[in-house]
Amino acid sequence: MKDAVPTVEPGRSVTAKVLAMLAAFTAAEPELTLSQLARRARLSLPTAHRRAAELVEWGALERDARGRYRIGLRLWEVASLAPRGVGLRDAAMPFLEDLYEVTHENVQLAVREGAEIVYVERIAGLHAVPVWTRVGGRFAMHATGVGLVLLAHAPASVQQEVLGLPLRRFTDRTVTDPKALRRILADVRRLGYAVSDGQVTLDALSVAAPITDPDGEVVAAVSLVVRADGAQPAALAPLVQTAARGITRALRATAAGRPVMRSPPRPVPAQRPGSAR
Amino acid sequence: MKDAVPTVEPGRSVTAKVLAMLAAFTAAEPELTLSQLARRARLSLPTAHRRAAELVEWGALERDARGRYRIGLRLWEVASLAPRGVGLRDAAMPFLEDLYEVTHENVQLAVREGAEIVYVERIAGLHAVPVWTRVGGRFAMHATGVGLVLLAHAPASVQQEVLGLPLRRFTDRTVTDPKALRRILADVRRLGYAVSDGQVTLDALSVAAPITDPDGEVVAAVSLVVRADGAQPAALAPLVQTAARGITRALRATAAGRPVMRSPPRPVPAQRPGSAR
Repeated sequence: MKDAVPTVEPGRSVTAKVLAMLAAFTAAEPELTLSQLARRARLSLPTAHRRAAELVEWGALERDARGRYRIGLRLWEVASLAPRGVGLRDAAMPFLEDLYEVTHENVQLAVREGAEIVYVERIAGLHAVPVWTRVGGRFAMHATGVGLVLLAHAPASVQQEVLGLPLRRFTDRTVTDPKALRRILADVRRLGYAVSDGQVTLDALSVAAPITDPDGEVVAAVSLVVRADGAQPAALAPLVQTAARGITRALRATAAGRPVMRSPPRPVPAQRPGSAR
Repeated sequence: MKDAVPTVEPGRSVTAKVLAMLAAFTAAEPELTLSQLARRARLSLPTAHRRAAELVEWGALERDARGRYRIGLRLWEVASLAPRGVGLRDAAMPFLEDLYEVTHENVQLAVREGAEIVYVERIAGLHAVPVWTRVGGRFAMHATGVGLVLLAHAPASVQQEVLGLPLRRFTDRTVTDPKALRRILADVRRLGYAVSDGQVTLDALSVAAPITDPDGEVVAAVSLVVRADGAQPAALAPLVQTAARGITRALRATAAGRPVMRSPPRPVPAQRPGSAR
């Protein structure tokens, strides 16, 4: 029984075990067999089997034609209620689309989660410079435009944590010296935008600006990523800052109960989720 | 103790209770107090409190400044691995963007979940006709273009279920007669696209086409929603069908391990989720 694993963990609650099953899935392996699932969640096969059946019944997991497990649409539906994911994305989307339409470059929206950034939305131009991002994917803070904005406005404890880590060098231009980074972060706060020039890939330059919530806290960042060759960051900054201000305004209006939408708000016809399943 | 509720449900497993807590959140109320959460999940306050603390610690829930609970970013990250959600959306996005760029109308992507549709993506034009949709939101199948496509290709049991229900009349043009609907579904299969003309709102017309997986199963539908006045469905259909074929092709390439991307695929730098938290 090579798949059986020692799983005596009396301290772990059932809630933790259920969450461990969800956390077993990754971007690299979004589909898992039962034994993979059990191993990664550190559960015995019978326990994993029983729990997986419950998760499938609810729709948190689904099974493909070969019987492998994957994250289910119902979990995605529930998760789409996350204010920092889809809520932010919905408020931001019209402004991201405008930014895309006038530039046809890559447009990205990200938030901070711990000491990393998570991409919440991305629009990629057909001829735009290739970028390393995936919606729902994480990235280091110190190299990207959105990361520098979010780090510049993060609590001091987060800045200390990030600057205290060995920082990954993506290219010759990646800044990994904590002192130099602190100066860059001060510039970002002073200028109101961040520039990452060849710091993730040599051919890309990103200009990013902060988005604030109604309390004035920086909660997200928007960026434009263009080909580094010939790019004029100072000319791009007002464009990105305007989009960031638009999204900030939209978040304030949403909080005040006045959604800023391109389409007049209409009630969604009452359909209880699952009512017709 | 008005918030206390009888919660003796010996048959309900802990997994089911955890899932009930997640399902307590809705688009209309994405933020809940502890007592609201307990009531909706049918849990006692102390149990809800203990479980909520575990969910917050993991990141499945977050608390706002006022202490109210909401779906957390970490759950959204995990859910972004759902192949029928973000996986499909990523494969489709370049084609949706192209459709949007050449029309500047509303572009929608939907899948079937039980007897309803769920919107997976939407791009809304600035001057496009207002539509009733939300990413992650559900809608009835019988009235919309994407719904008619997905219903036309659904298993017979699902068609029977939907046609056996009292069908909601959104406008004077909504088809609610099962016999007439069956004829429409046959047309959708024969023509390879569906038209919903004023059947959800009188001012909107939608043209939708099916997307198939590598096994030839219809797994999603894409639509263009335009102002009904002056619209020429037969002229729009080839556009939408071309986008649907492009997405079908991208899904096939992804399944074969050859991602179809506008940007050359590059490895995302290895960052274990949570590694830097």
